[in-house]
Amino acid sequence: MMLNLVPFVSVDHMMKLVHHIGIDRVLIDLAAEIEADFLRWPEFDKTPRVASHSDVGVIELMPTSDGETYGFKYVNGHPDNMKRGLQTVTAFGLLADVATGYPLLLSEMTILTALRTAATSAMAAKWLAPKGSTTMALIGNGAQAEFQALAFRAICGIREVRLYDIDPAATAKCVKNLAGRGLTVTPCRTAEEAIMGAQIITTVTADKQYATILTDNMVGSGVHINGVGGDCPGKTELHRDILLRSSIFVEYPPQTRVEGEIQQLPEDHPVTELWQVMAGQIPGRSSADQVTLFDSVGFAIEDFSALRYVRSKLAETGLGTMLDMIADPDDPRDLFGMLLRAA
Amino acid sequence: MMLNLVPFVSVDHMMKLVHHIGIDRVLIDLAAEIEADFLRWPEFDKTPRVASHSDVGVIELMPTSDGETYGFKYVNGHPDNMKRGLQTVTAFGLLADVATGYPLLLSEMTILTALRTAATSAMAAKWLAPKGSTTMALIGNGAQAEFQALAFRAICGIREVRLYDIDPAATAKCVKNLAGRGLTVTPCRTAEEAIMGAQIITTVTADKQYATILTDNMVGSGVHINGVGGDCPGKTELHRDILLRSSIFVEYPPQTRVEGEIQQLPEDHPVTELWQVMAGQIPGRSSADQVTLFDSVGFAIEDFSALRYVRSKLAETGLGTMLDMIADPDDPRDLFGMLLRAA
Repeated sequence: MMLNLVPFVSVDHMMKLVHHIGIDRVLIDLAAEIEADFLRWPEFDKTPRVASHSDVGVIELMPTSDGETYGFKYVNGHPDNMKRGLQTVTAFGLLADVATGYPLLLSEMTILTALRTAATSAMAAKWLAPKGSTTMALIGNGAQAEFQALAFRAICGIREVRLYDIDPAATAKCVKNLAGRGLTVTPCRTAEEAIMGAQIITTVTADKQYATILTDNMVGSGVHINGVGGDCPGKTELHRDILLRSSIFVEYPPQTRVEGEIQQLPEDHPVTELWQVMAGQIPGRSSADQVTLFDSVGFAIEDFSALRYVRSKLAETGLGTMLDMIADPDDPRDLFGMLLRAA
Repeated sequence: MMLNLVPFVSVDHMMKLVHHIGIDRVLIDLAAEIEADFLRWPEFDKTPRVASHSDVGVIELMPTSDGETYGFKYVNGHPDNMKRGLQTVTAFGLLADVATGYPLLLSEMTILTALRTAATSAMAAKWLAPKGSTTMALIGNGAQAEFQALAFRAICGIREVRLYDIDPAATAKCVKNLAGRGLTVTPCRTAEEAIMGAQIITTVTADKQYATILTDNMVGSGVHINGVGGDCPGKTELHRDILLRSSIFVEYPPQTRVEGEIQQLPEDHPVTELWQVMAGQIPGRSSADQVTLFDSVGFAIEDFSALRYVRSKLAETGLGTMLDMIADPDDPRDLFGMLLRAA
């Protein structure tokens, strides 16, 4: 094995990998991988992501480790990028061997993040949404929207998505992309119209501000809210009153308290860690009229699971190239000699 | 400009870059770049590096930003790697545009870290070591040793290096690599012998433990100690008594208090930030018999400077390749459509 070479999955290879396996299968597999890692939550070295904020966005590093494998993701969030023809969120990530510190995989993660975010949302809804949910409102029809729709179809059995975006062009794009995928897709002119008859409401907008995508009177009893877009200090989507009558489920409280919808609430407001529901330690949905909220901000373990999944698929698919990224002289103390000999 | 493509500097290209410019010139340039960035220290977004520790080593992320450019380094430290034929330290790093969050450069940094660490040591010594220093003891003759020797020659005018390592093979490797480079190189059988006549003592050993490479009676008045190897919680090189009679200079106190030699001292023990010396705010060496200690652990700004330097050299050298790392659909909201069209 050439230790200087690190397997690299480019954007092109990631897309080929997804099509080779099939998008639905990838979403189902990712949800299973993430669930398996959430079930061993205490084994992970966890830390809130490390954010560098500017006026226009944020750049974050999201590391974690299970003691055998280390992973981190680089990810940005720049809501104004869209106006400039750029992605709001781009990402790449790395896995490394804890025993040696040597990298094992470098991968694009813009597409992979879109997939893992949707898979995580649907996984959470499996535990929290009303049984037999068939209809989801999808408010915010940007880059993440179709991934959410397909994940909820594949993992939760959702059959209808009701779309709303302040920009009808975004909704039209979403309608077009979701055609022929086994979903009834209903474009709506208002958020109120979108949530009519929906058991699940997903909010996935991108503004970097305290927004009110949902007001209190829009949310009836018994629904599950999948709050994806409020994921940064100063960026929320739900009116505070909704939070006060919801059972709130989060990934990693030290991070969500700063970034999630619950930044609007006192620091001691009770929340439940999703992994504890999955582990059977704390009930998820306990009554039919309960409003459940998955206050999702995205956590490093989800990226770790996704990167490990991609790595596990490289051998069978032959995708990926090798990057000459690690200087590895024959005598490890002779780094300088290696440099000299390259002259 | 193809925004999906990120310039990548491989190990091979980094070595070619160094030889194209010349090692001495690179070391001098890096010291100048790092010095320029230290002089604008308050402009940087600073945080202690984010470490993930295991029994055998540490994996760290080192981010910083000057508000225009963001940079981070991935670096490991695994002292036992050497016995397995692996590098103790490997690294890679990235620059990104703060305005968009899009990456600007991905680069190997195992070699670049060796260069920037040596350049930083020599830069600090320029401010702290006795004027007219000509002789340096170099204790620890591993992968960093030759880089230290050359940086002190190029930047501080050192003419003799006196080498000691517990493994004579490491010293022999170092003697061989430094031949014909304008230095008198003297291998020594003990640390005591190595420091005879030296105005500067560099310790750069790799054990992950509280070691005592220098005891108090070995350090005479007036010397400058360049403490490079103590850079991790539980890993130090100097006897505490040396610290108590030294003027201690550090990079970023919140990080050095945890990782440096001063982890042996109370949290309020006075230290001086090196950038303040360079900015003329606080004196460096103030008397001939003063013992100065640069308690170096390595800080993110040094990597930022080094990465920017590498980036500035890509156009003229034509080195580097382009990596398809960022998914960048024509319509930024149509990430899913891009994925569909790749089918």
